[in-house]
Amino acid sequence: MIRLFVSADLAQGVALALDHGQSHYLTSVMRRDVGDEVLVFNGRDGEWRTAIEVAGKRGVILRPLALERPQAFGPDVDLIVALVKRSRIETIVEKAAELGARRVRLAITERTNAERTRVDRLSAIAAEAAEQTGRLDVPEIIEPVKLGKLIDGWEASRRLLFCDEAGDARPVLDALAGAASAPWAILIGPEGGFSPAERERLRNLPYATPASLGPRILRADTAAISALTLWQAAQGDWRGLEVS
Amino acid sequence: MIRLFVSADLAQGVALALDHGQSHYLTSVMRRDVGDEVLVFNGRDGEWRTAIEVAGKRGVILRPLALERPQAFGPDVDLIVALVKRSRIETIVEKAAELGARRVRLAITERTNAERTRVDRLSAIAAEAAEQTGRLDVPEIIEPVKLGKLIDGWEASRRLLFCDEAGDARPVLDALAGAASAPWAILIGPEGGFSPAERERLRNLPYATPASLGPRILRADTAAISALTLWQAAQGDWRGLEVS
Repeated sequence: MIRLFVSADLAQGVALALDHGQSHYLTSVMRRDVGDEVLVFNGRDGEWRTAIEVAGKRGVILRPLALERPQAFGPDVDLIVALVKRSRIETIVEKAAELGARRVRLAITERTNAERTRVDRLSAIAAEAAEQTGRLDVPEIIEPVKLGKLIDGWEASRRLLFCDEAGDARPVLDALAGAASAPWAILIGPEGGFSPAERERLRNLPYATPASLGPRILRADTAAISALTLWQAAQGDWRGLEVS
Repeated sequence: MIRLFVSADLAQGVALALDHGQSHYLTSVMRRDVGDEVLVFNGRDGEWRTAIEVAGKRGVILRPLALERPQAFGPDVDLIVALVKRSRIETIVEKAAELGARRVRLAITERTNAERTRVDRLSAIAAEAAEQTGRLDVPEIIEPVKLGKLIDGWEASRRLLFCDEAGDARPVLDALAGAASAPWAILIGPEGGFSPAERERLRNLPYATPASLGPRILRADTAAISALTLWQAAQGDWRGLEVS
């Protein structure tokens, strides 16, 4: 069944008007009509089964029928990625949504060619991926911030898995073995790597765990997907089969 | 330093003529000239440091100077993927190269919309990714074969990690814990999943280990990258820091 992420509140019987884009998608692209059912979620009120009540020129109106799944969230893990070129950042955001990241933070490092990025477009990609992957929330995409500033404002309880391709760090699974259950963040550097000064600072953070992603050089999108996968397998919701 | 995959034999002092595409890339795109050094590998003779001897209209000639790394191969793991749409198959091939797959086998399953694929183009993508990632071989891309035929011709000693999204399989790391060191293959289904008959057959293969990739629905490219990552971490060359 089609799943849509919406911003409006969801409650039994309260009609829901879709915007132009989603109305068009449902009726013109997917050929749905009055009476057809659609799942919707907003990241707050769980997943609702709804039926199309109106499908007209002014858009689609849905009627919520039943709460299918109460609101739940996956593990509290952020993905922090240095800005890379657009197609790879878009892949990273799509995959972060599928792999259950709670937030994606964009970082500007010394070796980042800080091209601008459109956070609104990345948020739309995150929402679409969340619809497809079945999660009940959409990862928040956070505007680019300089890495130093991000570290200055770090929340004390959050651990940091620092993927350090240059160093002699242990493999991720070894590095995470026995690690505390806590909020985490995973940091992926730019394709040129971190500068020596950045590595030095990162390695000395008391909440940071450096880790290696194997013997080959990985592109930033591959590194992000692999690191998030290993974190979910060691610390997150891939350990058992709990549905997030 | 630039790395190039070539087909010719590599030996001390034996001049090597690059084809038009690689000559153009070196001189016009990367602005290299006579005397500049380039690394080359062919998947048989190791990685050689070479110098540009001629850079003319008829192409580039390289002179091998020294063997930098003797030929070596990563773990013997195949990735078997059902054909999916072109952009995702291309991503899968690029990532399989970075993540150290020895071969990529394309499979046609019951729910595959068996569009044709260009194996020559996928091989070029694999070669380019191998150049960038630093490995000494290029994953072989094997023409699409029906899944049933692939199983009929299975080599007896190869284990199969069967990523089963529909079932109640154990997480990959649990499924691989204590598994024999052997040649392996990882099988990723099409986006519509395996048919019940296919699942039944796969689950009953004596060499197959079913495994789950977490609680969310993954696209085929994400599933391939995640499964290969976990296999490398549990069974392959991500366990230590041996360089393949």
